[in-house]
Amino acid sequence: MLNVALIGLGTVGKEVARLLLYERESILERTGADLRLKVVVDKDLAPREGLRLPSEVRFTDDIAAALDDPSIQTVVELIGGIEPAKSFHRRAIENKKHVVTANKALLAEQGGDLLKLAASRGVQLRFEAGVAGGVPIIKSFTESLAANRIERLYGIINGTANYILTQMTQKGLSFDEALKEAKRLGFAEADPTFDIEGTDTAHKLTLLCRIAFGVEMPFQQLSYEGISKLSLIDLRYAAELGYTIKLLAVAIRRGDAIEARAHPALIPYAHPLASVSNEFNAVTVVGDRVGEMMFYGRGAGGRPTASAVVADLIDIALGRSYGKAVSFSSNLRIVPRDESVSKWYLRFSVEDRPGVLGQIATVLGKNRISIEACLQKGNPVDGAVPVVMQTFEACERDVRQAIEEIARLATIREETRRLRVEPLTSE
Amino acid sequence: MLNVALIGLGTVGKEVARLLLYERESILERTGADLRLKVVVDKDLAPREGLRLPSEVRFTDDIAAALDDPSIQTVVELIGGIEPAKSFHRRAIENKKHVVTANKALLAEQGGDLLKLAASRGVQLRFEAGVAGGVPIIKSFTESLAANRIERLYGIINGTANYILTQMTQKGLSFDEALKEAKRLGFAEADPTFDIEGTDTAHKLTLLCRIAFGVEMPFQQLSYEGISKLSLIDLRYAAELGYTIKLLAVAIRRGDAIEARAHPALIPYAHPLASVSNEFNAVTVVGDRVGEMMFYGRGAGGRPTASAVVADLIDIALGRSYGKAVSFSSNLRIVPRDESVSKWYLRFSVEDRPGVLGQIATVLGKNRISIEACLQKGNPVDGAVPVVMQTFEACERDVRQAIEEIARLATIREETRRLRVEPLTSE
Repeated sequence: MLNVALIGLGTVGKEVARLLLYERESILERTGADLRLKVVVDKDLAPREGLRLPSEVRFTDDIAAALDDPSIQTVVELIGGIEPAKSFHRRAIENKKHVVTANKALLAEQGGDLLKLAASRGVQLRFEAGVAGGVPIIKSFTESLAANRIERLYGIINGTANYILTQMTQKGLSFDEALKEAKRLGFAEADPTFDIEGTDTAHKLTLLCRIAFGVEMPFQQLSYEGISKLSLIDLRYAAELGYTIKLLAVAIRRGDAIEARAHPALIPYAHPLASVSNEFNAVTVVGDRVGEMMFYGRGAGGRPTASAVVADLIDIALGRSYGKAVSFSSNLRIVPRDESVSKWYLRFSVEDRPGVLGQIATVLGKNRISIEACLQKGNPVDGAVPVVMQTFEACERDVRQAIEEIARLATIREETRRLRVEPLTSE
Repeated sequence: MLNVALIGLGTVGKEVARLLLYERESILERTGADLRLKVVVDKDLAPREGLRLPSEVRFTDDIAAALDDPSIQTVVELIGGIEPAKSFHRRAIENKKHVVTANKALLAEQGGDLLKLAASRGVQLRFEAGVAGGVPIIKSFTESLAANRIERLYGIINGTANYILTQMTQKGLSFDEALKEAKRLGFAEADPTFDIEGTDTAHKLTLLCRIAFGVEMPFQQLSYEGISKLSLIDLRYAAELGYTIKLLAVAIRRGDAIEARAHPALIPYAHPLASVSNEFNAVTVVGDRVGEMMFYGRGAGGRPTASAVVADLIDIALGRSYGKAVSFSSNLRIVPRDESVSKWYLRFSVEDRPGVLGQIATVLGKNRISIEACLQKGNPVDGAVPVVMQTFEACERDVRQAIEEIARLATIREETRRLRVEPLTSE
């Protein structure tokens, strides 16, 4: 029997409580794990709709009931954010309790220390719900792919951003219109900054780097960018070139280093990731043995996230652990942002007169950037025309330098728009 | 340290040996699992290209070296087929050794007995490689989805059949041409019967039923059909109706019963399963908590399959087990074949004269079958025209009865072709 304390009775917490209370017998029968919810801690002690806590379960606002009671073996932390969650984690672990959480912000910024502390105390810190809600990314990477050297991974791991991009692509909505729609349907929070500016994707990417490559990625060093500046015109040009635009978490092994970044990217229509729509998440991974693999499902929401949290509890109850897979530390370097390499989509707004294309191509060439495809069509508006170029692989520093030089050309009318292109090809 | 004996040094066995020998240090470092290959048993003792067995590894044709040596803790069986594999499993388990295998035929037909025997001896029988090669279906169902009631699942789990169907669909090849191409490229064996006639898909489906529903599906009762009778004309009509045709394993919870079948089916273009091409595999599952989820990757081949086998070994070495998830037995009934329900695609070849459609519709209606869509076009050939109908849900018995009655109509020219339609909609 595993005695469980739950901290945080929000959307996910309520579903975890429901599972532990109403499915206890069936989980025991199907898996052999006997999970007992003993304590629920929340600042708000009002009853929750759809949840009747029986008298055996203590419902309190006293955090000590979860963290200091010796009969509690596992603490589920679902309050999110850095503090007080971090202190709660430390205290639970110091008291030799396992911790299960969905708190990606905390794990991204403090995960290394917490995992070390847990290892030193002989308890587990589990976080299946931290990357893609109900989709078993952590277990698949750490256990199922354990015999593989992971070469690279690509993730669509923020449902809010993906919902907005899907609506923009499919219905031609502007970013602002699509965001409004996402809020109305509950796919975006009142303050969606973390989701649309890429922070949440970057948090999850640091977790993926840890489990895929054994790399402690300092969150502050991670290069990330959101989708709020995307315009419909870029989605349309991307479509003409055979791509759709997704907010992507990317991590690629380059020799003895890892290149990691999160940003909107053009990906080919025919790749399975391109058909991941609306609030769905997916992670594609390439292992040296298994080749390409994809995991797809709901990355958020109370019920899918609770499913992952309870799976972690079952693992603990049955004595299953990550082994060294989450604490293992490789010697891989981190590729500095300036040196990160990809293909690029560049959209220039130029004056409609002879020689302009040549000027741009000259500057690109001087900066070691080769053009793979070029698209110019449509009539000039106020004497300016858009020119779209897709480049071969070029490093970030060279592209930034080229764009700065191009901005100084007399024929350039607006700021140049740049996006990365990820062909996602296997091998 | 886990001492391992490997039986069968074929395509998969060789890759398992390579992983255990050449990646031993990195697996130990990354996971904490110390796997030691001690014995390799095969009838053929010739050296294998790309594999140098060191002198510490005994390479022998004596099966007792694997099954009876008390220092061996785990046996990996990769010879396939029922006998002698079954006897090897029993002897290894009786001798209290864990067994890891990719042998779906054996598990489909004898899995229940072997799992019971393993449980009684306190050892594990693991089979991650048995369903979709490198894709972690078994672990995801038994562990990651353990808090869910699984409602239904759909799998494209035979790479040979999927390769052939993809080539027929994309290049307009006939079945025979596509099979020839698959053989040339190594995606089909010299005798492809098990793959193209659905037997392999059905074997894997019985494993899926066990882990998803706790149902022991007697293989002999399973309804399955292959792809060798598919003609291009049906692929084209399916496309006009918005579907692609895949060889599908299907299992659906219907109240207190499970309906399971394997057959070619029309699935909607827009569903992620429709973009699973060529030799790739995928399984979609709907859980009551997680909603829809999909796992995608390479379902066959030495390296992906070896990746799954070694993942099982790592689990054993780290003391991770399935718990009760593979031996759990539910009380779910099995829906008799006659009562299985789906939408249907029906193609009639009829004489081109008035009243024929009405005759057919009358017979269908009398047998409780309603028409959802109808397609008739093209000029008559020898006075016959094809008429395609898509029905609403109807049970197998009614459809068979209706087709028999329709066959007796004077206006019917050829045998009616019927295929199931699976809309795959969530909820």
